[in-house]
Amino acid sequence: MTHYPPSILKAIKHISRLPGIGEKTAERLTLHMLQAPRLEIEQLADSILAIKDNVRLCSQCFSLSDADLCGICSDLSRDNTLLCVVEQPADMVSIEKSGAYSGLYHILSGVLSPMDGIGPGDIKIKELLSRIEQGKVKEVVLATSTNVEGEATAVYLAERLAKYPVKVTRIASGVPVGGDLKYVDQVTLKKAMETRHAL
Amino acid sequence: MTHYPPSILKAIKHISRLPGIGEKTAERLTLHMLQAPRLEIEQLADSILAIKDNVRLCSQCFSLSDADLCGICSDLSRDNTLLCVVEQPADMVSIEKSGAYSGLYHILSGVLSPMDGIGPGDIKIKELLSRIEQGKVKEVVLATSTNVEGEATAVYLAERLAKYPVKVTRIASGVPVGGDLKYVDQVTLKKAMETRHAL
Repeated sequence: MTHYPPSILKAIKHISRLPGIGEKTAERLTLHMLQAPRLEIEQLADSILAIKDNVRLCSQCFSLSDADLCGICSDLSRDNTLLCVVEQPADMVSIEKSGAYSGLYHILSGVLSPMDGIGPGDIKIKELLSRIEQGKVKEVVLATSTNVEGEATAVYLAERLAKYPVKVTRIASGVPVGGDLKYVDQVTLKKAMETRHAL
Repeated sequence: MTHYPPSILKAIKHISRLPGIGEKTAERLTLHMLQAPRLEIEQLADSILAIKDNVRLCSQCFSLSDADLCGICSDLSRDNTLLCVVEQPADMVSIEKSGAYSGLYHILSGVLSPMDGIGPGDIKIKELLSRIEQGKVKEVVLATSTNVEGEATAVYLAERLAKYPVKVTRIASGVPVGGDLKYVDQVTLKKAMETRHAL
């Protein structure tokens, strides 16, 4: 690797720091960039810097946004009586892609994780409660992950929300659609069996 | 994917244009960059632009270089009677990594490929011959790829070099070291058998 000139080594070093990009891939990408049109590479570098400059958190739901209010919060056609609580902006994007939800979101920007020293004050719980206090929301859908931290966060939020006049729901756990039962883990199967419903 | 703000979508678009990077990976990288320290992202963008600004081709061997002469051409300890001909700078780096070669290089910047309209005038053959004409080189090692184009280029170069007082050699083809015979293709095995040597 040391047989490239210094500027190439430097680019390889910086690119290989990205998650999931090893030194081999960084080398391949760098050599590609070397041959790609200059304009394309400038656009790439500019777009990377632009996300640092332009992207902020929506002041209402804390999702990623280029403006003060994100596209969803400022969309008056969405159902503002429904509020879906997720951990990260990417989770919101996944739910949006499913097309199954038309309400608003609240991004916690994390999960409760005592092991990592993340308590209720470190994620956007206070902000969630003050949105509920405004009185418009009728149902809060807890869509945190179904792992230990996500479940614990959902349980904690359900307790905190109990004193408000809102319905609190949790997304269903179970066998993924198209999933083969023999490849599904035992915990998921147990959950799917326990929460079975009449057809 | 359309549920991200415009600057993020733009970064995802530009990153996913890189070879081997799909939209999912570009999304993951963009979200990482959003959370990474600003300095790290600036260094990344700068290093990408720097390769476009600083890297040129060595005026003697046409490998990648930050200066007029590359590190290998300007290294007086290297054997300048040995000249290894490769297709691309990355091939040179692979040979350097092997540590098995101490001579100089000549990068053709391509291979003969009539199907793609690449003839002898399109790769650095003229420059190779003029280096030979200087009279210092005693052996030319043809290390083009062992695929159809690489072999054809090696054969063509051997013919062109026949009139010069240099020894022309070709890197060996055969079963990769550590390779399992049952996974080696028939053509390679045939070649390995034909070029077998006494122990």
